Amino acid sequence: MKKFDFGMVGLGVMGRNLLLNMADHDFSVVGLDLDAEKAASLEQEAQEKHQIKGTTDVKEFVNLIEKPRAIMLLVPAGKPVDSVIGSLLEHLEEGDIVVDGGNSYFPDTDRRVKELAEKNIHFFGMGISGGEKGARFGPSMMPGGDKGAYERLRPIFEAVAAKVDGEPCVSYLGSGSAGNYVKMVHNGIEYAIMQLLAETYDLLNRGLKVQDKRIQKLFDQWNNSKELESYLVEITADILNQDDPLTDKKLIHLISDTAKAKGTGKWTSQNAMDIQAPVPSIDLAVNMRDISKYKEERISASNIYNWEAQKDLDLEAFLEKLKDAFYFAMITTYAQGMAQLHIASKEYNYGLDLEEVSKIWRGGCIIRASVLENFRKAYRKNPELPNLLLDKDLAADLNSKQSAIREVLNTGISLGIPLSVYGTTVSYFDAYRSEILPTNLIQAQRDYFGSHSYERIDREGTFHTEWED
Amino acid sequence: MKKFDFGMVGLGVMGRNLLLNMADHDFSVVGLDLDAEKAASLEQEAQEKHQIKGTTDVKEFVNLIEKPRAIMLLVPAGKPVDSVIGSLLEHLEEGDIVVDGGNSYFPDTDRRVKELAEKNIHFFGMGISGGEKGARFGPSMMPGGDKGAYERLRPIFEAVAAKVDGEPCVSYLGSGSAGNYVKMVHNGIEYAIMQLLAETYDLLNRGLKVQDKRIQKLFDQWNNSKELESYLVEITADILNQDDPLTDKKLIHLISDTAKAKGTGKWTSQNAMDIQAPVPSIDLAVNMRDISKYKEERISASNIYNWEAQKDLDLEAFLEKLKDAFYFAMITTYAQGMAQLHIASKEYNYGLDLEEVSKIWRGGCIIRASVLENFRKAYRKNPELPNLLLDKDLAADLNSKQSAIREVLNTGISLGIPLSVYGTTVSYFDAYRSEILPTNLIQAQRDYFGSHSYERIDREGTFHTEWED
Repeated sequence: MKKFDFGMVGLGVMGRNLLLNMADHDFSVVGLDLDAEKAASLEQEAQEKHQIKGTTDVKEFVNLIEKPRAIMLLVPAGKPVDSVIGSLLEHLEEGDIVVDGGNSYFPDTDRRVKELAEKNIHFFGMGISGGEKGARFGPSMMPGGDKGAYERLRPIFEAVAAKVDGEPCVSYLGSGSAGNYVKMVHNGIEYAIMQLLAETYDLLNRGLKVQDKRIQKLFDQWNNSKELESYLVEITADILNQDDPLTDKKLIHLISDTAKAKGTGKWTSQNAMDIQAPVPSIDLAVNMRDISKYKEERISASNIYNWEAQKDLDLEAFLEKLKDAFYFAMITTYAQGMAQLHIASKEYNYGLDLEEVSKIWRGGCIIRASVLENFRKAYRKNPELPNLLLDKDLAADLNSKQSAIREVLNTGISLGIPLSVYGTTVSYFDAYRSEILPTNLIQAQRDYFGSHSYERIDREGTFHTEWED
Repeated sequence: MKKFDFGMVGLGVMGRNLLLNMADHDFSVVGLDLDAEKAASLEQEAQEKHQIKGTTDVKEFVNLIEKPRAIMLLVPAGKPVDSVIGSLLEHLEEGDIVVDGGNSYFPDTDRRVKELAEKNIHFFGMGISGGEKGARFGPSMMPGGDKGAYERLRPIFEAVAAKVDGEPCVSYLGSGSAGNYVKMVHNGIEYAIMQLLAETYDLLNRGLKVQDKRIQKLFDQWNNSKELESYLVEITADILNQDDPLTDKKLIHLISDTAKAKGTGKWTSQNAMDIQAPVPSIDLAVNMRDISKYKEERISASNIYNWEAQKDLDLEAFLEKLKDAFYFAMITTYAQGMAQLHIASKEYNYGLDLEEVSKIWRGGCIIRASVLENFRKAYRKNPELPNLLLDKDLAADLNSKQSAIREVLNTGISLGIPLSVYGTTVSYFDAYRSEILPTNLIQAQRDYFGSHSYERIDREGTFHTEWED
């Protein structure tokens, strides 16, 4: 009997859709789920041409897969991953490959790589972005692990990944937890761009009293422009257009403003601080979701603090500037995330190729955008580019838009609208382009109160001063 | 033979100074250090009236202390603490007390409390602020641990702590790692206020080309005002006045702008994200120290990006607004940190009394400031106040200064000076006082691409929409 090309553990909507996607591309696939209903529904969804099978039996599942086996897990991150690995282990053999397709925390992946390497089993952490539809019709996939073992997976992953100009949105990214790390930062950038869109909406809606219809049209125009074409702008336009099935209003006005989060944005910020990679725009996006939680306090505060301001401005001219400001903020946000990857790659020896990362983010994933092609070009010119802000072509763009974002930000501040992520993109930019920062004062303060010593610009060594008060 | 009242392990400058401080107050003290020179120099520094002894022998040290023993460690955080505890343990008895006076990471303290409780030994984590001088003449001390056992320590700690209006700057704060947690947040606030001062200097120096002498005078005036009197403003004025002993310049201009950090600010930010306590101003202060590290990139960027802007303004009138802006930013920064303590107290069952925290931060510590007395009053009125921004008296102050900080921030943005922490205080304030935030759009986006569901404002439950594109 011919064995199956690929096995999947966890037949929730993501796992099922990815298997169906593989089957579309003529791979034979087998799925395992302890829930018999899910195993059965996989087969029910299959089309006639598909070679697909669902089972609830671990041993049968493993034995049905062609050696070296390629098995993916799509189960919740954390303990479930370890527990599935545990149940598979007694049936696996040397050279088999286990791919964790969930949003696992990257140090967990490093631990699992090590544990399974002792049994000569290859463990991959692979970020997958694109949601349910992406899984079914073409996600962006970010695998990291053993380079040689990746060849067993490559034909399948390249077939099912999203394509942009014929190129698949999947690529071997690096060793260890590289894949999870890249996906984590992807999600951090996603948080910040979502928050930028929310702030844009807030400035127009609450600040300038622009009608929803005009805002919706604006996002639509942006998505149809070369600079801003992107999935998140596209769906924002869709969302503002969505009627509520339960009332006669637009749905957006009926959705609670208390935001939820699953933690990957937080991980991005926390780890960025560990490796001293500044990503203030991601940090603030995490913060704003957290602030939204304190609804009762916000209501109390809204009764204490008033700020009435009006702006007389030419709306259409302002919207042009807003487009430039959003572009500036978006680029500066990606630049922070990509710089984090550059730093992390050295810190964790991932060997990341940021040209490849830019390439596979062009399609399939949530932060796909036409600008990714420009990033790819920047990294092709200079694979060791530490920060996209240092690319001359992007710099020309940003220089021409500096004035717009400063004006937009000032407008938000004057109107009392919290443009927190917009604000950090400007302060990050202004700090990054400063040859001299006032941190010399901080070094002096630390030496004054804690004798922590300081360095000088005119001679080597560390110095301490008995400061005079 | 009469036993000693108190023992100290680690006779570096902090440990030695604190022991001398205790001896000044007629407590008999013994110090242990494996370095015989340090043990000897403790005795050499002692005055005739002091009852003080140094030793290098652990067993002798422990046996010299009155039971139940009170022993403090002032050794570097991390492994040295565990190793010292290990070496003491065989000599200790039930009821003895070990106080870790270093900047230990609070989960380590919780672990140690548990480990030592199994042997009926009380473990305290105690933050100490005030630097070398504080230790010698009166620090602010933040102890957490077993409430009953604290009585053994109280007379000594109250005697040596800084005093404000006759009240000691030490108080039992709560159980477990409460003391380390409060000190951690103290340091986070310290980072943010130091960064605010650096940004103030940058705006005046680089942005408005104000002479150092005028800036120095400004900080001096601020420190002599009721609102802004504070240690960090005071030493900033001193620093700008300091001559360089090696050249004929002011020292500030010769200090490197690459900032160092010991990690407590980072911990504050990282933990705040874990417990969903937004402290964006601390986050940005951490970020700015990190950005300062990338000096070479900053130089490259400074050659690519130019922003020439001039502001015609009435300097003296602007400096009045700047004072209001600094006050606004400072209060909003403390408010974030205190709110983090409020949330953490529930999360970790510390039972913190924020009136006491405000009280003991009024003197001795790095973030001491006259405004702490106002915070103390606010918490006395309402011990469960979730955020200082909700206190009516502080709100009246902030309301009267909103206009000033918006103008100052807009000036910085127009001039291209990175006012990152100033900026976050305004966006935090504007978000916190918003009854309605645009996070409904984020919830919609999450449901659109990830089927994460959302809540509605008009009915209970969670909802999912098949969004139309």
